[in-house]
Amino acid sequence: MNSGVTDEQVDAVVNKIRSFGLDANISRGTERTVIGAIGDERKLEPEMFDTLPGVEYSMHIVKQYKIVSRESHKHDSVINIGGARGAPGVALGGNQIQVIGGPCSVETQEQMDLAAQQVAAAGCRLMRGGAFKPRTSPYTFQGKGEEGLAIFRKAADKYNLPIVTELMDARMLDAFLEHDVDVIQIGTRSMQNFELLKEVGRTNKPVILKRGMSATISEWLMAAEYIAAGGNHNIIFCERGIRSFETAYRNVMDVTCIPVLKKETHLPVIVDPSHAGGKAWMVPALARAAIAAGADGLLVEMHPNPCEAWCDADQALNPQEFKDLMGSLKGIAQVIGRSM
Amino acid sequence: MNSGVTDEQVDAVVNKIRSFGLDANISRGTERTVIGAIGDERKLEPEMFDTLPGVEYSMHIVKQYKIVSRESHKHDSVINIGGARGAPGVALGGNQIQVIGGPCSVETQEQMDLAAQQVAAAGCRLMRGGAFKPRTSPYTFQGKGEEGLAIFRKAADKYNLPIVTELMDARMLDAFLEHDVDVIQIGTRSMQNFELLKEVGRTNKPVILKRGMSATISEWLMAAEYIAAGGNHNIIFCERGIRSFETAYRNVMDVTCIPVLKKETHLPVIVDPSHAGGKAWMVPALARAAIAAGADGLLVEMHPNPCEAWCDADQALNPQEFKDLMGSLKGIAQVIGRSM
Amino acid sequence: MNSGVTDEQVDAVVNKIRSFGLDANISRGTERTVIGAIGDERKLEPEMFDTLPGVEYSMHIVKQYKIVSRESHKHDSVINIGGARGAPGVALGGNQIQVIGGPCSVETQEQMDLAAQQVAAAGCRLMRGGAFKPRTSPYTFQGKGEEGLAIFRKAADKYNLPIVTELMDARMLDAFLEHDVDVIQIGTRSMQNFELLKEVGRTNKPVILKRGMSATISEWLMAAEYIAAGGNHNIIFCERGIRSFETAYRNVMDVTCIPVLKKETHLPVIVDPSHAGGKAWMVPALARAAIAAGADGLLVEMHPNPCEAWCDADQALNPQEFKDLMGSLKGIAQVIGRSM
Amino acid sequence: MNSGVTDEQVDAVVNKIRSFGLDANISRGTERTVIGAIGDERKLEPEMFDTLPGVEYSMHIVKQYKIVSRESHKHDSVINIGGARGAPGVALGGNQIQVIGGPCSVETQEQMDLAAQQVAAAGCRLMRGGAFKPRTSPYTFQGKGEEGLAIFRKAADKYNLPIVTELMDARMLDAFLEHDVDVIQIGTRSMQNFELLKEVGRTNKPVILKRGMSATISEWLMAAEYIAAGGNHNIIFCERGIRSFETAYRNVMDVTCIPVLKKETHLPVIVDPSHAGGKAWMVPALARAAIAAGADGLLVEMHPNPCEAWCDADQALNPQEFKDLMGSLKGIAQVIGRSM
Repeated sequence: MNSGVTDEQVDAVVNKIRSFGLDANISRGTERTVIGAIGDERKLEPEMFDTLPGVEYSMHIVKQYKIVSRESHKHDSVINIGGARGAPGVALGGNQIQVIGGPCSVETQEQMDLAAQQVAAAGCRLMRGGAFKPRTSPYTFQGKGEEGLAIFRKAADKYNLPIVTELMDARMLDAFLEHDVDVIQIGTRSMQNFELLKEVGRTNKPVILKRGMSATISEWLMAAEYIAAGGNHNIIFCERGIRSFETAYRNVMDVTCIPVLKKETHLPVIVDPSHAGGKAWMVPALARAAIAAGADGLLVEMHPNPCEAWCDADQALNPQEFKDLMGSLKGIAQVIGRSM
Repeated sequence: MNSGVTDEQVDAVVNKIRSFGLDANISRGTERTVIGAIGDERKLEPEMFDTLPGVEYSMHIVKQYKIVSRESHKHDSVINIGGARGAPGVALGGNQIQVIGGPCSVETQEQMDLAAQQVAAAGCRLMRGGAFKPRTSPYTFQGKGEEGLAIFRKAADKYNLPIVTELMDARMLDAFLEHDVDVIQIGTRSMQNFELLKEVGRTNKPVILKRGMSATISEWLMAAEYIAAGGNHNIIFCERGIRSFETAYRNVMDVTCIPVLKKETHLPVIVDPSHAGGKAWMVPALARAAIAAGADGLLVEMHPNPCEAWCDADQALNPQEFKDLMGSLKGIAQVIGRSM
Repeated sequence: MNSGVTDEQVDAVVNKIRSFGLDANISRGTERTVIGAIGDERKLEPEMFDTLPGVEYSMHIVKQYKIVSRESHKHDSVINIGGARGAPGVALGGNQIQVIGGPCSVETQEQMDLAAQQVAAAGCRLMRGGAFKPRTSPYTFQGKGEEGLAIFRKAADKYNLPIVTELMDARMLDAFLEHDVDVIQIGTRSMQNFELLKEVGRTNKPVILKRGMSATISEWLMAAEYIAAGGNHNIIFCERGIRSFETAYRNVMDVTCIPVLKKETHLPVIVDPSHAGGKAWMVPALARAAIAAGADGLLVEMHPNPCEAWCDADQALNPQEFKDLMGSLKGIAQVIGRSM
Repeated sequence: MNSGVTDEQVDAVVNKIRSFGLDANISRGTERTVIGAIGDERKLEPEMFDTLPGVEYSMHIVKQYKIVSRESHKHDSVINIGGARGAPGVALGGNQIQVIGGPCSVETQEQMDLAAQQVAAAGCRLMRGGAFKPRTSPYTFQGKGEEGLAIFRKAADKYNLPIVTELMDARMLDAFLEHDVDVIQIGTRSMQNFELLKEVGRTNKPVILKRGMSATISEWLMAAEYIAAGGNHNIIFCERGIRSFETAYRNVMDVTCIPVLKKETHLPVIVDPSHAGGKAWMVPALARAAIAAGADGLLVEMHPNPCEAWCDADQALNPQEFKDLMGSLKGIAQVIGRSM
């Protein structure tokens, strides 16, 4: 409350708290009076109180996310991927680190067949590739669409690789389920597309939830809570770089979010070093940093021939660079007591 | 090109440019060689060249937006709103300034009837109100939905006020058209929901395109280009505050974008001072600043009884505050030679 | 405190609070226990408690700034400038709005004489000009130095204009006092040069304290508190644009800080629209926005011949543009009940 | 140039370029005309051209930093520290990784003696500690000052540890030289204190130049160029976290800057994970990430008894945590082929 608060103003706040079925604690200091709500304060919102006379500032003490919080579920969750088709599935989270490799976008059957072979050869157990591409300009390649899903499925199946691909529109969800997409990726621009989050929350497919370009950790956890509230708890957070004032690189990869998420949530956290830096030559350093900081996995762009890629050509590793990177990542995993 | 570039590397870049049907100009400096593409460079993307050996940096000289650019259309566009139902319609853009008032969310018929009367009494010709609400938490009020559209339509029709309301999901577009929503608002979290932009681009309804929380001017113009490319040129930009490091207020209202957009595009630019600041007491100062900086209009939250609002209670003006603000805005409009 | 806090952990926090002579209030909620310190909590710092077992989060309730706070001094402070040399002085703050015009840097006596004449002719009562220039590159013009102070003083005295100029180094303070600089400007890069703040705090000269490029309101107020704690309360805040992700303009002029500072402090707030936008054609829109938002004045760059300016040529208005701007600013001042 | 540019406007730009002794290349495209300056373009500044009629945009092609650039000096620089007093000195840069440990601030002789012993025992070859502390509030502990330098020197000498400490004011440089401070640290708030940079540029002491809170890579390199231009090339860059919109941690540690700086400059790059995260429990993850990303060293806060630290108590590791961290860092160094 403000410094010159009156008893009537204090009473009005206490009455408002009580009207929601909670109790109130009043602490009168020498300069400020603090009123605390006792009970399930998730029913209250700070803005309900900020307009009352005498109120200086109001805030939540208890966090707004429940299902995804570490407090509600102490042990690390391990997400089982792709096990539905008879195979044992790939575990993401826990002690094991998973690298998800593949091209930015699905181009042709030949390109995807080759990419799948190279991804498997490098030791990856999961593959990525975009059939629907969110592009800044309406005049550039927008992805192969549903045809791309079929191409991707066919290529990956040869090598037993579960597939990860981005869903941009709730109307395409049925197509994703028909093609049995193993992991649905929600892109950075869709992190707060709440209707889309609700839809994937109704499925049982693992979801990679990328962080919005300038989303706070709290907003990101709340976006995951939208999915979880629908019944789907198979959520994987993916840091992909945040927007900053710096112009020398596209985004700033935020490694600090890794230990912080690990503390706040039981769900796995992976990192996309390719989109974070935006240049292939930065990827090895960023990938190593992410694993060293405790990430449970990576999404890395690899293309059979980066110079010919239809999209984001400058950020894909070539197959050899990708293989070399896998080697050093294994070394770091070992140092910190994890397997890869 | 890098400082130690070879002739072969220069030739490779020139050949790549020519393979797209453009010509190349080579300028050899004392420290750097610069290669320019001559022709429609929108076919090219910097990333196609960044991977070639010897390339230091590549960039577009010509801007990527066409239909929305001032270069393609010298005069200010004026958007005609709500004229479809026989009435003459309300003009937004040009010399006239429009203030769009109304509550954050549609709550009840009584609340909307009262709000519509107060909005009209204050001299507004357009009304706002949300039936579908994007909320950070899945556990808070999510809007009245389609029922809210009917309530809003009914209340506004009594006072001949065209209505402005947010569309969050392409699957609801038909309902918006059925209820004859006059202006479709695309919210800050949907600015790069490209599938949604394509859908509203196929209608002929005026669209208010809010700026993404940390969208650059260029990304915003490109998002508008998505709508325009579909055939709908009735686009209104709406600045609503950008995300910053500052914690004393929710967003930073970016007045600088007003003169910059006025230079880059022929389309109208309005400002939402309520969401920018996040507190009702900041709104009058911000609203005045926006009009003084050249905005073509405002979206202002007004609630018959702010303390009882179901959503964003702390940012709505009460009817008297709203009326007083309208008065000072008229004065500023006059000083800069505009009418309101 | 964390959810599983023990009585021993609560006791340890309470004992630590008491060891500084304060009392403690304990509020046990259903999910969290909150401990409040009662007494002068400025003696405590959150970091003292964050390391104690069981503590989840600690924060100040009372603000850390005292002398500059509105709470300690209810009425607007008016700063008297340049009155020392017999003249009555110019008032900044209160109802009167002051525009401080002049070139980015002192170049020659002729340039400054001409600029002073034009500044006075446009109706300004104060003049700006830089003798010491903070430049990003060591290879560009660094200002005329002490010679520049003499040139500036001479030019301004002919028109009875108190002078405003930037101090970058405590070792130059004596020279500033010798040349009787009327207002010492602390630049954006020096906002947290605490030794420099302490030095100007020991003088009685009015100080314009520019906001750091990405300083929060709270840090800015604390920087002013450094000056005030030394005994000098003649402080003027100057917003000059904050750093953001946007690349279309140099900085984002933060108009929201104006009403917020007016609420938090009794000291005057001015704005520098020239540095904020970085381009002369943006200045009129930004200047009008600042005054409309409640600023007490402006720092505006005007150069007799902008194309020939030695520094920041693209952001200075020419004399005619400056005069025209003064006209529309007067109109806006009148609308909001102030004089200029 | 703008799309409707005239021949006269092109000529004016060409003439301006030639007036500085450079030549011009004109490339006429279908939509834009591009004019390039041939010769030493460092003499020119974009702002000189932005004001000329018909100019749309002007930029440097050649970078503004010279001495610190990788282009001017291909091999990694190795800085020799503390060799002046007869000892062989400690090498920073090249293949060797150095961890600089020690408390935030010098408190007492006992504390520093103990800290020095623990730093040496953990395997560090360099020690840090602050005698002059930049504090946001004037009412908090400001450091022991010159007495602190003597205490620090004495403690470190027992273990043959060269010392690193922050210089905030040019007037204290003589004291730093008298106490033979081995590495002068320029703090984040002083990165663009150009007069201070010039002063340390005149000494031959190694300088750790911390990145400004929201400094771009380019500004940081230019700040180093100020020191180098004075003759002192013993410069070490130190990333310490950048300011962002995120409130869950104090700063965002920017690992991307490590590979980028390694490409742009020959000088060593270290990281301060303690200030970046602001909490001791984040430090191990961040420290590992920095080394994995290629940093040449770290500045890590360690305090004999963190709970009793006079400053930043919540970010210091205790001696055991510090020792454990050193172990895992050595493992990562080995994986990437470096020694520590």
